[in-house]
Amino acid sequence: MSKIIRINLANNEIREEASPKGWEMIGGRALISKVMEEEVDPTCDPLGPKNKLIIAPGVLAGTTASCVNRISIGGKSPLTGTIKESNAGGTTAYKLGRLGIKALIIEGQPADNGLFTIYVSEDKVELVKTEELKEVGVYSAADKLRERFGGKVGMIIIGPAGERLYRAAGIANTDNEGVPSRYSARGGLGAVMGSKRIKAVVIDDSVAKGPEIANEELFKKTRSAMAELIVNNEQVANSYTKLGTAGLVNLTNSLGALPTRNFSTGSFEGAEEINGQKLYELITSRKGEGRPSHACMPGCLIRCSNVFPDENGKTIVSPIEYETIGLLGSNCGISSLDTIGKLNYLCNDIGLDTIDIGGAIGVAMEAGIIPFGDGEGAVKLLEEVQNDTYLGKIIGSGAAIAGEVLGVKRVPVAKGQVLAAYDPRAIKGLGVTYATSPMGGDHTAGQTLRSPVDHKKPEGQVEASRNAQIVNTLHDCIGTCFFVGGAIKGELQLLGDLMESMTGKPCSVEDMKQVAKDTLIRERRFNRGAGLNEADDRLPEFFYTEENPASGTVFDVPNEELKEVFNFE
Amino acid sequence: MSKIIRINLANNEIREEASPKGWEMIGGRALISKVMEEEVDPTCDPLGPKNKLIIAPGVLAGTTASCVNRISIGGKSPLTGTIKESNAGGTTAYKLGRLGIKALIIEGQPADNGLFTIYVSEDKVELVKTEELKEVGVYSAADKLRERFGGKVGMIIIGPAGERLYRAAGIANTDNEGVPSRYSARGGLGAVMGSKRIKAVVIDDSVAKGPEIANEELFKKTRSAMAELIVNNEQVANSYTKLGTAGLVNLTNSLGALPTRNFSTGSFEGAEEINGQKLYELITSRKGEGRPSHACMPGCLIRCSNVFPDENGKTIVSPIEYETIGLLGSNCGISSLDTIGKLNYLCNDIGLDTIDIGGAIGVAMEAGIIPFGDGEGAVKLLEEVQNDTYLGKIIGSGAAIAGEVLGVKRVPVAKGQVLAAYDPRAIKGLGVTYATSPMGGDHTAGQTLRSPVDHKKPEGQVEASRNAQIVNTLHDCIGTCFFVGGAIKGELQLLGDLMESMTGKPCSVEDMKQVAKDTLIRERRFNRGAGLNEADDRLPEFFYTEENPASGTVFDVPNEELKEVFNFE
Repeated sequence: MSKIIRINLANNEIREEASPKGWEMIGGRALISKVMEEEVDPTCDPLGPKNKLIIAPGVLAGTTASCVNRISIGGKSPLTGTIKESNAGGTTAYKLGRLGIKALIIEGQPADNGLFTIYVSEDKVELVKTEELKEVGVYSAADKLRERFGGKVGMIIIGPAGERLYRAAGIANTDNEGVPSRYSARGGLGAVMGSKRIKAVVIDDSVAKGPEIANEELFKKTRSAMAELIVNNEQVANSYTKLGTAGLVNLTNSLGALPTRNFSTGSFEGAEEINGQKLYELITSRKGEGRPSHACMPGCLIRCSNVFPDENGKTIVSPIEYETIGLLGSNCGISSLDTIGKLNYLCNDIGLDTIDIGGAIGVAMEAGIIPFGDGEGAVKLLEEVQNDTYLGKIIGSGAAIAGEVLGVKRVPVAKGQVLAAYDPRAIKGLGVTYATSPMGGDHTAGQTLRSPVDHKKPEGQVEASRNAQIVNTLHDCIGTCFFVGGAIKGELQLLGDLMESMTGKPCSVEDMKQVAKDTLIRERRFNRGAGLNEADDRLPEFFYTEENPASGTVFDVPNEELKEVFNFE
Repeated sequence: MSKIIRINLANNEIREEASPKGWEMIGGRALISKVMEEEVDPTCDPLGPKNKLIIAPGVLAGTTASCVNRISIGGKSPLTGTIKESNAGGTTAYKLGRLGIKALIIEGQPADNGLFTIYVSEDKVELVKTEELKEVGVYSAADKLRERFGGKVGMIIIGPAGERLYRAAGIANTDNEGVPSRYSARGGLGAVMGSKRIKAVVIDDSVAKGPEIANEELFKKTRSAMAELIVNNEQVANSYTKLGTAGLVNLTNSLGALPTRNFSTGSFEGAEEINGQKLYELITSRKGEGRPSHACMPGCLIRCSNVFPDENGKTIVSPIEYETIGLLGSNCGISSLDTIGKLNYLCNDIGLDTIDIGGAIGVAMEAGIIPFGDGEGAVKLLEEVQNDTYLGKIIGSGAAIAGEVLGVKRVPVAKGQVLAAYDPRAIKGLGVTYATSPMGGDHTAGQTLRSPVDHKKPEGQVEASRNAQIVNTLHDCIGTCFFVGGAIKGELQLLGDLMESMTGKPCSVEDMKQVAKDTLIRERRFNRGAGLNEADDRLPEFFYTEENPASGTVFDVPNEELKEVFNFE
């Protein structure tokens, strides 16, 4: 991949550049951090013309190895005020990789309120007026774009939420079937895309030459080795492939870490109604369009995604994921997968992050607007968001702002972003990640659920989080799914071999980790430039003072230790 | 003054302490900064039990000198996330001074949702249940408290805004006539008081012994010297006494600095309808209860306050001030003093900061909710706030949050707080103050309007702001009104002599300035502890990029120079 394409909305100029020398190993999140540091004033208004929206596949994108085609989208976040990279599956990284595109950098801002789509193919990149898509939901927008640009394009789309600059707006990527539900959800990047008046990016790789692979033989050999490890991995088959990420519900519930009723406890009496087994049963018994296992991106052998049907076999939503279940389900006291699926679909269509919206609905429930457990009420709240009412705007702003406006003191956010579905008092390594990650409350920034620590004790959590943050960042930089590490039994050198096959240069695990560390260092530097310091690396007060009854713990990793997370800085 | 009284709402304990040794010169804002630094975790939740609300008169409070009885109220701000001191006139500092009370420190938080009033007199301090005042407006609450505690008490009161934890909630102090309209308005401290479930502090000095004065002779001599300077100061008579602060409208309008239609320009075509002359004419022609000149605190000889009557001579509001006219008037495109007076009264009664609410209504107008200039619409917006509707909650959260929720990009705030009524592009020294003050956007933190600089040029503004911040902080520490400096022709040593008469120790202007500098240094240290760094010392982007058409300027004081404001640190 050698091209970087800049689209400047201030003057509608499109420019193609060669990828800078020395960037062979720089893709995805690493690339975003480099561009942000070199080109964007960290104090800029995230929704102003000085911010940039960067769409960057990982280094391995466009190839047919398993789990290597995740997309990174980044910029300065209007939710957290920090640098942000938000990562998703789908086909968009694959298609950009096949077009040899290392990054799309969307710059500036139009003077008027038009609405554009960026069309990218082998022979051209152009800005197309698509006013007719104003305020159109994501699913319907995808259909209309497909009618116009052909059935096989990949698409990156925002919903009304992004157009309206809601702080909880995400960005959808289409999957293998063209369903726009693989979300770069976090950090309000949908609002950044909306601020530039870009409704969609359409990627047409129909006549693409495909990615340049320096060493085809090494690539094929490594791809096969990985495939063999994955397909023979029983844990993958029994958990991720069969149950999807929903398989985590039982585990976190047993740890007292499943967010329940606005993080007031960590075990949910309705857990059995929303766990992986229940989801599997419903999908397999309802049949029709349902699929218990489904690949979110080309070539994926883990297939943790799913298609969730209603009683008549018609799709409610695809996929339904653990984080969504935890936040829109147990965190709201809702124990019906049908309701969660409906809420999930609505979020996807409006263009919202299910995690931040689940947090915001939990906060609205704590404020007494509707009671905990009121699924119908939650659907109505999302209809308020859809209809852009004042209450809808409050919810669409995410939990941090909703908490401020609604006068709620217990708001589960870090750097303004809702924590994922792991209570930081019960899985303290994740608490360290939430607090210290340059990304704010985000499990994919440093997942310690599988780390060899006692999750309820403060000891060892800083090291666990540090290691996880480095490895997770590594995946975000090279474009691999972070489940692949376990799936290939920790043989990360295989990823190094894939890197070598692409770049022609040997690549050790340490080399990849160095890319990750450098990325984290750049991100933290950007955040300091944006006005943050170590005192921002904290959780909300109630996690330190209010015991989680299910785990019997508060968050008690000492601040002095939190300062040591980035000891490689 | 020798007593510090602590009221802990967690256990309803009331404790009296002697003022620490060496605190003779420490009062008001200086005292707040000391207590906050020594006792409050800067990362704490501003609305949680770890924050404290500190009510501290200045060192000269309780005496009968002119202009020395301002009250300081402080804590960590839920609006700015910084340390905050908000300053007002009225009688409360005077009465606390007469009781020998150096500070009331309100700590902790009750477990339930009760509502209390703190009663303070010569012989007792007690917590009184006043559930019947829940959601009662400030004026009516004052009446009811007076019925209960007697007509001559001083009162510090919050409205429904503070009880509901609105981020733009202020705290009212009663004036000489018992009218609760001298506002410690800024920074959302009303919400801090509300979070502790304190509706009011009632101060009964009926049998007070009065303040201890170490050198009566020096005190009387200095008081007379000051009085003579003030009553013979023609500028005071012709501007402040006759026109009040509204006299500034013509000056700022001519400089292109009068905020107009959400800071989109700095001169207002309706300025003549809202200036000091117009106000004077209306008050003097309508007669009845109107007073063009009125003392906000005991003994004040400047008398810049007023009572503004309607056509029948009944009071609309008292006082009406320049900042309110600038924010609720021209900034909203409203050119009727009657409407501004009505808006002002509603803000006072609900318990809101007129500056932040004027900013929020301007933002709502920019969002298209009502058009600029729609006075009736603005009144209706405040009724939404009064009724606690969702739109009302958004406006009551202040302009920063309103801008986020309503998707408005031009939001005139610094550190989350609305700028006062001076466009920072046209009076650049104030821009420096807004950007760098530990208090956020606040003119009283460092007013440069009278500084010997070309307001439109970047040169010299950092020095002007530095000097103004030191002198303004000096006034906030000793409890003097910041108009007194001009009124006594810059003879600040007279204030030093008053200090000496109180403490018995010689006090030079440099000594007082040192107290101010030490205070600023402590405040900045607290803010760093709260997560801020120099990148937070900035104005919103649009002031740097969008020309103010009235002044023909952008804000262009270089960031490198902004770093030099606190060169004494």
